[in-house]
Amino acid sequence: MTPIELALAEARAAAARGEVPVGAVVTDPAGQVLGRAGNRVEADHDASAHAEILALRQAARLRGSPRLTDCTLTVTLEPCPMCAQAASFFRVKRIVFGAYDPKGGGVEHGARIFQAPSCHHAPEVVGGIRETECATLLTDFFRNKRSGAPPPNPRRGN
Amino acid sequence: MTPIELALAEARAAAARGEVPVGAVVTDPAGQVLGRAGNRVEADHDASAHAEILALRQAARLRGSPRLTDCTLTVTLEPCPMCAQAASFFRVKRIVFGAYDPKGGGVEHGARIFQAPSCHHAPEVVGGIRETECATLLTDFFRNKRSGAPPPNPRRGN
Repeated sequence: MTPIELALAEARAAAARGEVPVGAVVTDPAGQVLGRAGNRVEADHDASAHAEILALRQAARLRGSPRLTDCTLTVTLEPCPMCAQAASFFRVKRIVFGAYDPKGGGVEHGARIFQAPSCHHAPEVVGGIRETECATLLTDFFRNKRSGAPPPNPRRGN
Repeated sequence: MTPIELALAEARAAAARGEVPVGAVVTDPAGQVLGRAGNRVEADHDASAHAEILALRQAARLRGSPRLTDCTLTVTLEPCPMCAQAASFFRVKRIVFGAYDPKGGGVEHGARIFQAPSCHHAPEVVGGIRETECATLLTDFFRNKRSGAPPPNPRRGN
């Protein structure tokens, strides 16, 4: 599977757990997966447990370094400001994301973290990969939530 | 000790470990400490291991909920955009911080996370508590670093 396919699988697994379906994968230049996760906000009682943060932490732990300068973060949704700033702190080389998030995103929208003068490290950004598939997972999840169908824990933490 | 004194103690302990001296404490309305931490970026190989995130995670784990709606986050330095957004996701009632951070802060500077139209929850903010003491810890740390004195791991992850 490609990184975005792995991220989509993580997002689907998150939905099955009642978490907002976002998934993320960190890969090295050879394509090896160093970290992969879906949202775990409700499961871990941790509002910072977004897929990106979890995958980045896994990868850094595996590497034994808080800097992932040659790595790519692939995620199904445009990262929020928290995750965008974290990706900058982890020094990732590239961010590839699926769906754009005009309301909660912090890369192409809102705080636009990487465009701030105080941002020390701005990764390359590619958005819109498998966009429809990534977005549909989210719209289906929230539609089910509004209709009263499970899963029971609707919010990602924002 | 007051929350800011506890946060200062955590910051000093972080400096002694070679981490950038920032400390944070989460308290409930009765003043009980639910979480306390200093930076652990280098120790944990985790660029997201800022004092605020660690203290918030501890408190939420203790509470068994990712939402800390009645809690105060007290921190020696103005939170960065990552930590400000995390504090919003954790729904903290109030943020009290010591030193202002014109370069890296995300509350009164830069991304001004809580002022964004997309911010769903903006905590009350009080800045400048024990400001000189909090700032001096940081300036001393970086002066020692530039002079070649220990501690050896200078960066907070930004």
